[in-house]
Amino acid sequence: MTDVKEKTKLNRKEITYNKLKGLGQDIINDVTEKKIPTLSVPSRGTSNIVYDDAKRYYVLGDRYGKRSLGNVKQIKKIGQMVHVANFCKDLVQREKTATLREMYYVSEGWGIGFDNQQESNIVGEDIEVTLGTTREDLGLMPEEDGASVYGNIVLQEGDIEINALKSGKSGYTISPTIDEVDFVGHDVKRVIAVETMGMFHRMVQEKAYDKFDTLIVGLKGQAARATRRFLKRVNEELNLPVYICNDGDPWGFHIAMVIISGSAKLAHVNHDLATPNAKFLGVSASDIINYELPTDPLKDIDVLRLKELAKDPRYRDEAWQNEIKKMLKIGKKAEQQSFSKYGLEYVVDTYFPEKLDAME
Amino acid sequence: MTDVKEKTKLNRKEITYNKLKGLGQDIINDVTEKKIPTLSVPSRGTSNIVYDDAKRYYVLGDRYGKRSLGNVKQIKKIGQMVHVANFCKDLVQREKTATLREMYYVSEGWGIGFDNQQESNIVGEDIEVTLGTTREDLGLMPEEDGASVYGNIVLQEGDIEINALKSGKSGYTISPTIDEVDFVGHDVKRVIAVETMGMFHRMVQEKAYDKFDTLIVGLKGQAARATRRFLKRVNEELNLPVYICNDGDPWGFHIAMVIISGSAKLAHVNHDLATPNAKFLGVSASDIINYELPTDPLKDIDVLRLKELAKDPRYRDEAWQNEIKKMLKIGKKAEQQSFSKYGLEYVVDTYFPEKLDAME
Repeated sequence: MTDVKEKTKLNRKEITYNKLKGLGQDIINDVTEKKIPTLSVPSRGTSNIVYDDAKRYYVLGDRYGKRSLGNVKQIKKIGQMVHVANFCKDLVQREKTATLREMYYVSEGWGIGFDNQQESNIVGEDIEVTLGTTREDLGLMPEEDGASVYGNIVLQEGDIEINALKSGKSGYTISPTIDEVDFVGHDVKRVIAVETMGMFHRMVQEKAYDKFDTLIVGLKGQAARATRRFLKRVNEELNLPVYICNDGDPWGFHIAMVIISGSAKLAHVNHDLATPNAKFLGVSASDIINYELPTDPLKDIDVLRLKELAKDPRYRDEAWQNEIKKMLKIGKKAEQQSFSKYGLEYVVDTYFPEKLDAME
Repeated sequence: MTDVKEKTKLNRKEITYNKLKGLGQDIINDVTEKKIPTLSVPSRGTSNIVYDDAKRYYVLGDRYGKRSLGNVKQIKKIGQMVHVANFCKDLVQREKTATLREMYYVSEGWGIGFDNQQESNIVGEDIEVTLGTTREDLGLMPEEDGASVYGNIVLQEGDIEINALKSGKSGYTISPTIDEVDFVGHDVKRVIAVETMGMFHRMVQEKAYDKFDTLIVGLKGQAARATRRFLKRVNEELNLPVYICNDGDPWGFHIAMVIISGSAKLAHVNHDLATPNAKFLGVSASDIINYELPTDPLKDIDVLRLKELAKDPRYRDEAWQNEIKKMLKIGKKAEQQSFSKYGLEYVVDTYFPEKLDAME
């Protein structure tokens, strides 16, 4: 078991608390100095979302909007922002979290009503962008839990230690509060994330964790934010290579790519969520051909999506361009579980070892 | 900690294995005796699905169909059944499981092809019904994991003991193989299942497990089969009362009812899945009024669904009929999380204690 060395971690909660306090203090300062209180909110418009070649994910550009109490139309929005910031400051201070839904209901008592939850969600995002912090750090938790993890890693949540090899067959569930979890130690050499829980259970059953000294991560489709944060942390804090194995279709490709290079919509938090060193293991168009997998024909919507991906800067890489072209050419897609054509064990006994060999 | 006494449990796997073997043996016997091999498959048609007042859930009636090798149209179907049964026998013997998707791909090698997965799924269900066993016992696992469980219960999976109070903030995940899990001990007086993970995390944060000596179960919407099996087992094997708290709308009502009285579609396995003693705690129409909850107006589809429920035998009970009428009258629904109007803690500090008091 490799012990994880104690790092002089910055306390994320403390930083967030200070940022939130600072936002209020700036307004008070403006008032004291008889200036009109103004907030600068970075723009999340598409023209301000830029793919950063060096970082290998989307970031926000430097455009921002001003919200001023001197503008009658902006007074309500500033009032809402201050209320939400205050609610979050309270959460952080009391070490609590709330869902966006709960915040919306709590806001009924603020007398500065949101017309619907979408409106309060957007103000929450305004605070995220303005302070350059994630909603999780603000205490605003997504409803959904993250992926399932199986394998020899020990985590600490508060005063509880959890071994993801001893959490049951469905493994350890990554909670939305993943940033409060410490890595204590591990005995693995890599991480393999798979799209479906069917494949997750197959890998647990065939003892893939043992055969490949790997953590097995069951993504359950599109990876939740907590999952992306977990994969980034194991990759960067524990120096573990991360491989992603999904269905061989444009949707499977993109589940991998959002883990690798983040989404445009979350450009303001990709520095916390994207794992540019993560690698797509398969199922690729080449795999479909080489392993003679059972396939389904591409639907129109699949073809359309593949053509979109070909133009997406995240897929600039030659290997991706070739795979997209190849899939369009054969006009076929294949599921992760289609390796069972050769028996249930084949994917673990043959496919994974061959692919890992080629990639490492 | 209450220790769970060792029970002389029948070995479900052994029983299933014998049933599967028996199915093949019957055919061999017919052949040896020069009779035409025939299988009796209980009918799953709506006219054979009956609500059993004594058992308080749907069961299959006594109608069945014959499949005979003497009927040319039925030869392929019998061949498929025998192949699937053989595949399952192999799974059970090797202590493995497979998803229906995997079985479909494996079947490519059988030379008695299924046109699509729906066809192989149905044959799997034929075997379930014919042998009176669940697909889980046959080794055919659903893709989806069950609910999250938080609280002081110790479970055993193989040689691993798991305490659901020490599995992390997202708790212990009920695996599709829940019937292979043993209850070792617990220190709780009840079980509260909630519809959303937002409410699950709220309860964990407010220490509801401690305040109410309860297990907290996060259903994640409609309860998975594994969750229903878990709730039935804690109710019947551990004698723990089970309460269900969902959104106050027809869909929330029905999530509770399927746990309580099973679904019509699964009439053949409700004896393993339904928990007739489980109780609906809320959110009821009365709660909406009494707690002056924030509401949304009922949509046409909600009204339609409520009227359907009013005619459903599972809702015959006077209390249900009154709640359905009341909701139709006020024309409003409310979400579980709407209690946050009174602060994040209110639901645990006030609502749950008041309701539990009234119900116990």
